[in-house]
Order: sequence, then structure tokens, then C-alpha cells
Amino acid sequence: MTDATTRRISGRVTVRLRPGVLDVQGQAVAGALGDLGFGPTRVRVGKVFEIEVDAADADAARVRLTEMATRLLANPVMEDFEVEVD
Amino acid sequence: MTDATTRRISGRVTVRLRPGVLDVQGQAVAGALGDLGFGPTRVRVGKVFEIEVDAADADAARVRLTEMATRLLANPVMEDFEVEVD
Repeated sequence: MTDATTRRISGRVTVRLRPGVLDVQGQAVAGALGDLGFGPTRVRVGKVFEIEVDAADADAARVRLTEMATRLLANPVMEDFEVEVD
Repeated sequence: MTDATTRRISGRVTVRLRPGVLDVQGQAVAGALGDLGFGPTRVRVGKVFEIEVDAADADAARVRLTEMATRLLANPVMEDFEVEVD
């Protein structure tokens, strides 16, 4: 909840497949880029979650976003993630 | 192709739904975060393409990634994109 001690803070969680995990979507994109004449490329596809939370400060927001990533947004077996706060 | 005048350069294209376009996936994630007790959040979901290209320098790589985004990676009606080069 927003009260006198919190403010709305924007951040993002970027979720990527771990190195070594086959990225089928990335391979498909690399193939399509090749078909368009872009030459050899290496592509890996991830997701970015732009999230606004109510938190006391940037450090508290970072903790919340990290917990969201751990509990919901990333699959720890196959993915790793990065948290940034504005 | 890689030759004496090019090197492998890494960058990324982040594709997001334009403001005002309904983000059903983001709403679903926000709902799931609420169910987990995270309180009200606003979530928008995008894609990040991590791409390695052969280019003469960072400026040339940025031009290539921008062309890839325009021609394949982003749907200009519903999405906008951002290009970064390492």
C-alpha cells in the first residue's frame, strides 16, 4: 500500500536462459535474420518485466523485485535474472 | 562475415508494448504477484534480444541492430524498441 513512508518506484527484472540452455526461440530469430540477409548472428531471447512497486526506497524496491523474480518470474533451473531499479 | 575490418560486437534490442496497448501478460503477472502477497504492482512485459553481430565498430553495430528491430523484431503498430551496444 502507498502511505507516507512509501513511494512508487519503477524497476525491471530481466530474465534470461542460463548459458548452455538451448534457446530455440533465439535460433529461430537468428535464422530469420539470416534469411533477411543480415549474415551470421547469435541471438538469445529473454523477457523483461517492467514493474512499479510501492517501497520506502530503492534498496527496499530492489529486495522486493528480487523476491518476485525468485518466487515467480524466473525458473531457477533454466533461467537467471537481473534486477535494476530506477 | 568476420574479416580483418570487422569484429564480433554484442548488443541488445529491448522490445516493449507501446504505452496504451493492453498488456494482458503483464496484467496476469501483476495478478499472480498480488496472489503471492506482494501488494499492488503495475507490470508490463517485454522481450530482450541479446544479439552478436560482426561489425566494424559500435556505431555500425547499432545501425544493424536498429535495422533488425525495424524489419523483424518489433511490430511498429504495437511495440517500440530500444537498442544498446556493449
